Formats: sequence, C-alpha cells, structure tokens
Amino acid sequence: MLFQVAMTIRIPHDADQVKIKQLSAAEIELARKLQHAGEWRHIWRVAGKWANISIFDVGDTAELHEILTSLPLFAYMDITITPLCAHPASLGV
Amino acid sequence: MLFQVAMTIRIPHDADQVKIKQLSAAEIELARKLQHAGEWRHIWRVAGKWANISIFDVGDTAELHEILTSLPLFAYMDITITPLCAHPASLGV
Amino acid sequence: MLFQVAMTIRIPHDADQVKIKQLSAAEIELARKLQHAGEWRHIWRVAGKWANISIFDVGDTAELHEILTSLPLFAYMDITITPLCAHPASLGV
Amino acid sequence: MLFQVAMTIRIPHDADQVKIKQLSAAEIELARKLQHAGEWRHIWRVAGKWANISIFDVGDTAELHEILTSLPLFAYMDITITPLCAHPASLGV
Amino acid sequence: MLFQVAMTIRIPHDADQVKIKQLSAAEIELARKLQHAGEWRHIWRVAGKWANISIFDVGDTAELHEILTSLPLFAYMDITITPLCAHPASLGV
Amino acid sequence: MLFQVAMTIRIPHDADQVKIKQLSAAEIELARKLQHAGEWRHIWRVAGKWANISIFDVGDTAELHEILTSLPLFAYMDITITPLCAHPASLGV
Amino acid sequence: MLFQVAMTIRIPHDADQVKIKQLSAAEIELARKLQHAGEWRHIWRVAGKWANISIFDVGDTAELHEILTSLPLFAYMDITITPLCAHPASLGV
Amino acid sequence: MLFQVAMTIRIPHDADQVKIKQLSAAEIELARKLQHAGEWRHIWRVAGKWANISIFDVGDTAELHEILTSLPLFAYMDITITPLCAHPASLGV
Amino acid sequence: MLFQVAMTIRIPHDADQVKIKQLSAAEIELARKLQHAGEWRHIWRVAGKWANISIFDVGDTAELHEILTSLPLFAYMDITITPLCAHPASLGV
Amino acid sequence: MLFQVAMTIRIPHDADQVKIKQLSAAEIELARKLQHAGEWRHIWRVAGKWANISIFDVGDTAELHEILTSLPLFAYMDITITPLCAHPASLGV
Repeated sequence: MLFQVAMTIRIPHDADQVKIKQLSAAEIELARKLQHAGEWRHIWRVAGKWANISIFDVGDTAELHEILTSLPLFAYMDITITPLCAHPASLGV
Repeated sequence: MLFQVAMTIRIPHDADQVKIKQLSAAEIELARKLQHAGEWRHIWRVAGKWANISIFDVGDTAELHEILTSLPLFAYMDITITPLCAHPASLGV
Repeated sequence: MLFQVAMTIRIPHDADQVKIKQLSAAEIELARKLQHAGEWRHIWRVAGKWANISIFDVGDTAELHEILTSLPLFAYMDITITPLCAHPASLGV
Repeated sequence: MLFQVAMTIRIPHDADQVKIKQLSAAEIELARKLQHAGEWRHIWRVAGKWANISIFDVGDTAELHEILTSLPLFAYMDITITPLCAHPASLGV
Repeated sequence: MLFQVAMTIRIPHDADQVKIKQLSAAEIELARKLQHAGEWRHIWRVAGKWANISIFDVGDTAELHEILTSLPLFAYMDITITPLCAHPASLGV
Repeated sequence: MLFQVAMTIRIPHDADQVKIKQLSAAEIELARKLQHAGEWRHIWRVAGKWANISIFDVGDTAELHEILTSLPLFAYMDITITPLCAHPASLGV
Repeated sequence: MLFQVAMTIRIPHDADQVKIKQLSAAEIELARKLQHAGEWRHIWRVAGKWANISIFDVGDTAELHEILTSLPLFAYMDITITPLCAHPASLGV
Repeated sequence: MLFQVAMTIRIPHDADQVKIKQLSAAEIELARKLQHAGEWRHIWRVAGKWANISIFDVGDTAELHEILTSLPLFAYMDITITPLCAHPASLGV
Repeated sequence: MLFQVAMTIRIPHDADQVKIKQLSAAEIELARKLQHAGEWRHIWRVAGKWANISIFDVGDTAELHEILTSLPLFAYMDITITPLCAHPASLGV
Repeated sequence: MLFQVAMTIRIPHDADQVKIKQLSAAEIELARKLQHAGEWRHIWRVAGKWANISIFDVGDTAELHEILTSLPLFAYMDITITPLCAHPASLGV
C-alpha cells in the first residue's frame, strides 16, 4: 500500500552541527536499507531545499508510523502524508 | 529532469457531465501514451479525491508546460509543480 | 487499518434541492450499510455544520477510495483523510 | 457530550529530554485512567507524527477544560477542539 | 454551557433578493425568541460586515446543532464555534 | 462602544515560571478591577486553551489600547480585536 | 476615532455591467460627500487593483457600520477594518 | 509617490530590554524627523498591538528601502508594503 | 522604478470562449507594445499555469496602475505586486 | 532553463552578527561570480526587506540545487522556486 511522504528538515541554528551530520549520515544509511527492503520505494530531493518527496510501500499505517518515527532526523522533520492508490491511467505501479 | 506534479480536478456542478466524461477518457488515453513515451513516469491516485500525484521526466520546463496545458481536463485542474533532483540516499531514479 | 475522514458538504445555492435530498437519503442508507459491514466504524455530526467526522476501518487505501467515491454526495464533499494507527495509551481500538 | 480533540506535541529541541520522557509516561498513565473512567472514549495515533486524535465524552466544557489542562504534556500541545453530536446515519455512539 | 458562535452571511449575487429579505426577517424574529428563552445569550453586529458574534447557552452540543441548523439563513452562513467555560477572573457569567 | 478581544497566551518554554505566575495573578486582579469599572464587560475561558474571549466597553480606541497594553501578560499575548455594534435582533446589550 | 478600512471590489463576471457602473459612480459621489463631512478622512487607490485603503474618523463603531453598509458597492466588497489610535511618534493626526 | 507600510514589532522574550528601549526611543526620534522632512506622511498606532500603519511619500522604491532598513527596530519588524496611487474619489492627497 | 507583477488568469468555465480568445490576443499585442516602449521589461510564462511573472519599469505607481488596469484580461486576473529596487550584488539591471 | 527564485533571509536575533556579516559579504561575491557565469541572470532587492527576487538560468534542477545550497546564507533562507518558460508575448528572454 502506497503513501507519499513529504519530509522537510528544519535544523535550529543553535543545534550541535556535529550531531546533525551524524544523524544525517545515519539517515542516508537507513534510507538505503529500507529501499533494498522494498518499503521505501522512491526518494527524490526537492530542488533548493533540505527536503525530499518519497513513496513508501508498507503493509499498513502502523508500519509506516514505525518507519518514520525511527528516522534519525525525525525530531527535526515536518512530515506530510498522502495516502495513494492505483490510478486507472497508470501502466504500472 | 524530474518534476512532481500534483493535479486536483474541480468540476463545477453545472458543467456538462457528458463532456466531462469525454475529456476524462481522453485524459486517460493521453496519460498512457505519455507513460509509454517515458515523459510521464508515475501517476498515483490520491485516495478519496479526484486528484493524482505524478512524476514527469522532461527535457526542460517548456516541454513540461506543453504537456500539462495539452491535458484535456487542464481547464479544470489545480496544478502544483515541485522541481526534483536526485537524492544522495536514492538507490535509483 | 484506520483512517479518520472529515467530510464537509457544500451545496451550491442553485442546485436542485429535490435531487440533493434524494442523494442525502441514499447517503444515510449507505452509511448504515457500511457500518453494519464494519468498514465505517464511527460517524459523528460536527455541531453546527453539514459535516461529519468518521473513522473507517479498511483493508487498504484502494478500498477507502472506492468507498468514498461511491458516496452519493461525493461530488459536493470536501474530504480530508488522516491515516491513524494504534496509540500506546489506548485501552482498545 | 462528545468532543473531538486533536493534540500535536511540539518539543523544543533544547528541552530537557529526561523530563519530557517522564511527562510522556505520566501522560499515558493518565490517558488510560481517563479511558477507564469513560471520559476519554478513543485515542488514535496520527501515523508519522507525535500527535493523536481523541474523542472525549464529558459532562460539559468546564470538565473538558479541566481534563486537557491537567495533561502532563499540555504546555507542549497544539490542541484543536471540534464539538460533536449524534449523526442521523449513526448506528450507535 | 456556553459557546461562542461567529456567523458570517454570504449571499450569492444572483440569489432571489425578496426571498433573502424574508429569511432575514424570520431570522431576527427567531433570534429574539431564543434570547427570551435564554438560549441565545448575546448577539452583537460585527462592524462593517453582514456578520455577528453570539454567545449561546445550551444544554449540550445537540441542542446547539438543532438551533443553528434551524436558522432561516443557515444555508448562507459560515459558522465558527468556540467552546467556552467560566474564567477564573470573571465576576459573573 | 464594544470590542471583542480574543487573547491567547503563549509562554516560551524557557521563561521564568515564577515570574509568569506572578504576572498571571496580577492579570486576574486587574481583570476583576476593570470588570468592576465596567470597561471589561465579559471574559470567558476558551475551553482547552490558555486563552480567553472578552468584550470590552470603552470610550474610544485609545482607551482600549491603554487597557490592553497595560495587561501584565501583554508581552506574551496574541490579540485579535473585532469592532462590534448593536445588532438589530438584540434584546439588550 | 480612527479606523483603517481596506476595501476590495469583486464583481462576478456575469453581473450586469451597466448596473455596476451606476453603483460605482454613486459610490464616488458618496465618498466625496463623506470626505467633505470629515468622516472619510483619506482614500487611496491600491495600485493594480480595484481596491482602496481608507481612513475613517467616526464617533463610534455604529456610525462606521452605517457608513460602510450604505456604500453602493457594499454587496461586492471584501472589507477589513483595523482600529487605530494616535501614535506617540506622530506629529499630527 | 505613496506607499502604505504596516509595521509589527516582535521582540523575543529573551532580548535585552534596555537595548530595546533605546532602539524604540531612537525610532520615535527618527520617525518625527522623517515626518518633518515630508517622507513619513502619516503614522497611526494599531489599537492593542505594538504595531503601526504608516503612509510614506518617497521619490522611488530605493528611497523607501533606505528609510525602512535604517529604522532602529528594523531587525524586529514584520513589514508589509502596499503601493498606492491617487483615487478618483479623493478630494486631496 | 521596478515592480514585479505576478498575474494569474482565472476564466469562469461558463465564460464566452470566443471573447476570451479575442481578449487574449489583444493582451499579447499590448504586452509587446509595452515591451517596445520599455515599460514591460520582462515577461515569463509560469510553467504549467495560465500565469506569468513580469518586471515593469515605470515612472511611478500611478503609471503602473494605469497599465495593469488597461490590460484586456484585467477583469480575470489575480495580481500580486512586489516593489523592487537595485540589489547591491547585482551587476546590472 | 529559467527558474524564479525568491529568497528571504531570516537571522535569529541571538546569532553571531560578525559571522552573519562575513557570510553576507561572501554571498555578494558569489552572486556576482554566478552572474558573470550567466547562471544567475537577475537579482533584485525586495523593497523594505532583507530579501531578493532572482532569475536563474541553469542546465537542470540538479544544477539549481547545487547553486542554491552552496550559498553562504543558505541555512538562513526561506526559498521559493517557480519554474518558468518562454512567454508567447515576450520579445526576448
């Protein structure tokens, strides 16, 4: 089941920059692992922002919640979720 | 080059419903043709709405404009465009 | 899987009031049938508005889309969907 | 009398994380106690957010105010209240 | 139990002006009757607008819903409801 | 002359809580004094929020400004002012 | 007592253009009369819009309401009112 | 050439209050000087807020920019600018 | 003196399409004439919308108002104006 | 390919002002270099704000992203991007 997830990262200017870089590196690693597992289907960078648009393929909303709240940068994210389904005009998924 | 395009269809309640159905059928046909051509990479239905979230892969913004304004339901659409690029965490495109 | 769905009905002032009443009666009938079937878990009236807040329990987002777009008053609705999951503090569902 | 209450928790990044965890644990305990008492009828997690959607059943608005302002995390919450009543299509409450 | 209700009247420019005047007269009559009955505690005109700010004192949200939806101009109103309770600084109600 | 004033108190999480309590106590005392003087006609608590909705009866906007800016918690308030006048349907003021 | 009033005129595209021109001419005449009377202190055109920003000097909010609702184009206006008072830095009024 | 400028002052609660008072005094002095020079035509206090609505009469947008950015409290201001011109109904400027 | 003007065209679905096409052709002709005259410095199409972003170079706001309100499609436009001036980092204009 | 980029700089009041001045100087230097290279086609100051409106001419969205995120003040910017293309009424680009 597909969900579009738009994530925008907002780092307070007085945050610990070393810690943010570590979290960011861990985030990239986890994103790759979840892509291999098939749950994080797509991730695109939004041009000009520290933000991404992603497509998740999960069994249910509980799994989606578990994934998103486990992201290393979760505490710094604005997240918007849009439930998707197959479009009659689509050739594939 | 990738753009996310979010389209919401709003039909006035006194519109000619026969004409709307014809436009809608033509829209699906064109969407499939553009997917075969590789320009309309993904189209998902937004659950519970007459709306979709799509990913376009075009040569430039002029091509994107030409495609969108040629859509049969264009006059009834609210369109939001988000320029995308490759994400460092992405395994593919 | 649970979704909160907030529906607000907006009827244009020049709509056919007889048709609206028929659609509204059909809507109530369908809402009851879907409650018996267990898919429409709760429906509450928003005080002072022609609007409701509902909880749906569906297999996936495709089923949610099918239900919502089959509602007799769908063309007159503003719909907002919020994906839900179990809360650690909840005693039940 | 029913009210939908939507609560979103916003923790400043420089807050004392130990204190927040204690408040959060106390919040869960109180939520369970109020569910047993019948005043907090439902609580669902909003997927992907530190937020919940709840249904309260209280005698009046003063009781609702007393409950919400007594929540351990109240100072960190954005709260939106929607007064509800029985829906003609509802099979139960 | 008190609720603030803010009502703004929006009349489409092609509405039947005679009918609107009749509804408006009936509205004033009903507002006075409900003030005598003690349910409509206050009504003030918002300066420069066809709008009012009112305080209702009702037994529950169902009674509030019944009153508001029975208003002759209800179909033309934008309504915002704010649940109120006694303020510790208030000398009265 | 009547004005509705909606006040929402927002306290930064790192503010001096002792000082805030002192200001809050002084605010209640001043609110009572201004009610006795007839300038602060009504004050209601907004359920579930540190906020109130008030009706002021002042000679002019200068007097309203002087009162509001003299409130002990003024620096922490979001204030919205709506000019009111008598409503033709009102039985009193 | 001073109020800033921002008026934006919105004419439906299917309105009777002859009638609108007559109302507009009557509006200009009334605006001039009220300026001579000292109640309409300033009126400026907002560049690029059918809109104005005005300063009214009235005895109370009832007088302001009476003036604004008597404007020939009132039914087509979006009106925003801001209560003003003397500024400590002002050399005059 | 006229511009309406709406300025709202927002002081962080942990700012140096002595410095803010000094900046505020310097601001009033500069405002008076610019009124004498004819560039700052009007300044009104917005009732109940640390905010003003002003009318500037400047040679061009560069002069407007230079004036506004030279204001002692500029760093704490939210500024909205509306270009104005003469209104056909105006008796003067 | 420079102003950015963002224009979005909104055509009601029941407008006379022949008339709209004539107005649109006249609009293009006028835009070209004003570019030759140096007042309309730039015009770009917003991709995927019937909208443009333009830069005007005018003597004052009155001239800007006269130009914009003389546009054939003015009655169907949402217009947003942003006053500009030279940027210290700019190599030219 | 053209993009309009609107940048607004927001500096927290407790930021290191010396560092901000250095970043600002570096920003101006880079803006000039990118103008010489032809990628940053226009930059205008928004009157009365620490903000600019710019036109970029880039090969693709990846190049746009690389430029914007390399700006010295990027961490303090709100950025809005609008994809542009040639307008049929334009005499040039």
